[in-house]
Parts: sequence; C-alpha cells; structure tokens
Amino acid sequence: MKMIENWFSERYSDNLQLSFRIKDQLLSVRTDFQRIDVFDTYDFGKLLSIDGTVQLTERDEFVYHEMITHVPFYSSSIPVRSALIIGGGDGGAAGQLLSLGVERIDNVEIDNQVVEVSRRFFPDLAGSFSKPGVNLVIGDGVKFLRGKKAQYDLAIVDSTDPVGPAEGLFQEEFYRNLKEALRPGGIAVTQSGSPFYQPRALEMAYRGMRSVFRNVRVYTAFIPTYPSGFWSFTMGSDAEFSSPKGVRVGRYFNGDIMRGCFLLPQFVHEIIGD
Amino acid sequence: MKMIENWFSERYSDNLQLSFRIKDQLLSVRTDFQRIDVFDTYDFGKLLSIDGTVQLTERDEFVYHEMITHVPFYSSSIPVRSALIIGGGDGGAAGQLLSLGVERIDNVEIDNQVVEVSRRFFPDLAGSFSKPGVNLVIGDGVKFLRGKKAQYDLAIVDSTDPVGPAEGLFQEEFYRNLKEALRPGGIAVTQSGSPFYQPRALEMAYRGMRSVFRNVRVYTAFIPTYPSGFWSFTMGSDAEFSSPKGVRVGRYFNGDIMRGCFLLPQFVHEIIGD
Repeated sequence: MKMIENWFSERYSDNLQLSFRIKDQLLSVRTDFQRIDVFDTYDFGKLLSIDGTVQLTERDEFVYHEMITHVPFYSSSIPVRSALIIGGGDGGAAGQLLSLGVERIDNVEIDNQVVEVSRRFFPDLAGSFSKPGVNLVIGDGVKFLRGKKAQYDLAIVDSTDPVGPAEGLFQEEFYRNLKEALRPGGIAVTQSGSPFYQPRALEMAYRGMRSVFRNVRVYTAFIPTYPSGFWSFTMGSDAEFSSPKGVRVGRYFNGDIMRGCFLLPQFVHEIIGD
Repeated sequence: MKMIENWFSERYSDNLQLSFRIKDQLLSVRTDFQRIDVFDTYDFGKLLSIDGTVQLTERDEFVYHEMITHVPFYSSSIPVRSALIIGGGDGGAAGQLLSLGVERIDNVEIDNQVVEVSRRFFPDLAGSFSKPGVNLVIGDGVKFLRGKKAQYDLAIVDSTDPVGPAEGLFQEEFYRNLKEALRPGGIAVTQSGSPFYQPRALEMAYRGMRSVFRNVRVYTAFIPTYPSGFWSFTMGSDAEFSSPKGVRVGRYFNGDIMRGCFLLPQFVHEIIGD
C-alpha cells in the first residue's frame, strides 16, 4: 500500500497497481492480525483495505457478496437452513444469506477489529450481525471447526488471500474439517483468487476441495476492484449440484449467471487441469 | 496518460488509474489522428497505447482478439468466407480470422501509423497483413462502407472507444451501412466498452444494432488490462444466430465460453434494457 498525495494504490505485483483517488482516509489501524484502512474514494464510495488489498467498496461489494452466497445456495440439493461463514467480518455474506431465508448462521471472524470497523463505516453490511439468527463468533475459524460434526447445510470461506492470517484456510486438513462440519449433501465454497494473477490460489483451492469432496466446481465473476477484475470461487459437495430454474435476481446474480458462471475460459480449465 | 518515473498509467476516470511498471518507452508519436505509445512493461510484455488508453498487451491480447472473431464466426448461420474489419490496425483480428479459415479479408484502418507501429513492435500480429487473402486499406471505415452492397459474411468493428476518430462508428447511420455491406444472413459485431465504466457506449452500440438488425446479442469477456477487466461486444444479424456444438479451442475461447459469454449479469441486462 502506498499513499501519494490523495491516492490509495493497491499493488497487484511489483509492476502493476490500481489507484483510487480519495477524499479522505477515514481510518488506519494495525490490529493483532493485520492492518486495516478505510478510505472515502471518489468513484467507489467507502473502501475497506486489509494489508493493502481492497476487500470491498460500497459500489461493487454486491458482486462478491451475491456470488459467494447465491451460487452455492441455489446449487444445494438440500434446503439451506443453517450456514457457517469463516471470515466475512464485514457482514456482507451473512446479510445475503439472511435475504435468501437462511435461518441460522455462525459467522466466525478472527479479527474483531474488522467487525468494529465495518459496524462504524459499513453499517448496511455489518447490520446483519445484529439480526436474529446470526451468531457472530470472534475466533480462529480453523480451531472453531475442529469437532464440529454435521451441523451446517452450507459453509462459506470468505477470507483474505492465502497469505497472512488466512493461510490455514487453504490447506487440505482445513477442507477435511470443513466437510466434517457439513450435513450430508451440504456444500462448501471458498473464494479462490484471480485466475489471471493468482493461478496457484485457485489450483490450491481446487485440489484441496477435490481431495475431500466428490464433486467440485469452479465459478467466476467480474469484480472491478479486485486484481484483474476477474475472480474465482471453488465449491465442493458429495451430493450432485442442483440447477434450479427459478432464482431470485440480484444486482449481479440472475438465472443467466447461475448457469454462465460455471462456463470457464480455456486458461482457467488449464489451471485446474480438468 | 501520465509518466511518473518508470510507470505508465491509464486514467480510467479522474479518480481511478491502472499503472504498469515499464522497462522502457519504445515509441511515442503523434499522428494525424491520435497519439500512439509503445511501452515495454514488466508484467505484460509490450503494450500499445492510443491516446493514453491500452489497446493491447502481448500477454492478454489473445482474449480480445479471440472473442471479437470466434464468437461471431461460430454464431453465423452462413459459412464465413469473406470479412470486413474496420479498425484492427494491429492485425490481431485479421490473424484470428485467417486461423479460422476465412478466405478474404478487407481490413480498413484509418491511421497508417498504427499499422507501421504494429509491424515494428507486434510483428506476430501485424504479420497477418502480409498473408494471402488479407487486403489492408488505409482509410476511413465510414467512407469505405458507403456503396458497399452484400459483399461480406462478417463485419467486425475493432475500434477505439467512441471518442476521437472512432466516434462515427457508434452512430445509427454507420450500422445501417454496415448492414448493407453484409450478405443476407451476415453478422456484424462491435466492441462496445466496459459495461461498468462505460455503460453508455454499450447502450449506444446496442441501440444502434437494434435499429437495423432483427437479432442482437451482447456478450462479454474478461480482459485484465481494459478498464474494470470486463468488456462487452455487441453482435447483430437478420438471421438467427447459430449455436455450434464443436468449436476450435483457443487460449480463452472454447465451447463453454461460446455459450457462457452471452449469459449476462443483471446490471448489464439493465443497461441494455432487455
């Protein structure tokens, strides 16, 4: 992360960066886990950055949060009544699940400061933590999972990238524990990075899911403020994925996207080797 | 466009820019039509910029050039033997059409300097201009079209954005002339900008196509070095579009993409009002 005058820049590599002109830096805090910044940008509204990488902006968070929730929700062969979210300290994923009618959500965020910052600056998202059915746990998702058996219909890994505190979330043992926590026929999903800039994150997620689930599917979405604008998610289940006819339309998600998001460019097929 | 030390930045708006670290600026020339720059970047190989906007990079040009050619080629209900390209002075689109077996290509580029620069710095692309079947015309595509009747199976508008020299290519009269130049059942396609940052470019292209063609379809692709990473193309024909089973796989394009590229996010449906 670099500030030149009134710009916030995310470095995608040593050689590439996206820069947002900002009205103001609203907060900068180093927590026990990471550095959190909030900027007020001109084009994207408020922006939350963790360790210098954009986590969400007011203008385009809807894409990520709809896609990490609606796609597995509608892919489920069993009714999704209970869900686990690991990460997701902004509350966006929990809010989307509530809107889909999920009744019971455990949301395990490792860094309580992410929650506090979101409550202050992104109340529309963090408001979901105060709603009935949502149980916010401040703790380590990896530890939380241990010993959980057949409790959830859906598990969402809404984490930062596989460096820093989220590293353990991309290991095979983690996926095994994730599966144990699911009811028979349940679905797990994880964000799995930019296929263009982070092919190894996708490869790791795909292999990890493949090592424990019978069926694994990768899907993608266009997210303008994430590196390359093109993002992947990886979903696993022992049940067959369902392909529903009717879905609730969001701002990004719709019936087209429910089918089209699984249709991958050739270079993505080559990363996952299918 | 702005150079700070050894970076090239494309301004997406007053408030957002993508910056490439460069090894060297290989060329900068103001032509009768526009400013052309070539940079040697660290992450994307050589980069061609026109009026400060990235036209292509060696690393990701394949997405744009495959998608502006393969999709209409395989959508055609008639065999595509002859094609017109308006713009495309780098030679990338012509090269893809040749690889698909198109026999006769008129490529009309307004700025001979684009061709010269591409011959020098992007010989793999511009090499197509020296191949049998390709007729390079330096001239105004709008004028070239006038009086052309039923000569082409496919017409590709591979232009810069609808400001500057390409402005006339987004007008209704232009689409009418484009249609006149097509054989019965022929297809026209234009790049139509980033749905996220340039919704009006897409809206204009869609309306222009709709005003002259019976069938119009919008499709999208992920192009990391274009604004937002998400790009649209708009395709029109009086014939029904075909949906072939077998297609030749490229680096981005494949059978999945041939179906999936037409499946649009909700906010794109709302831009085009369908």
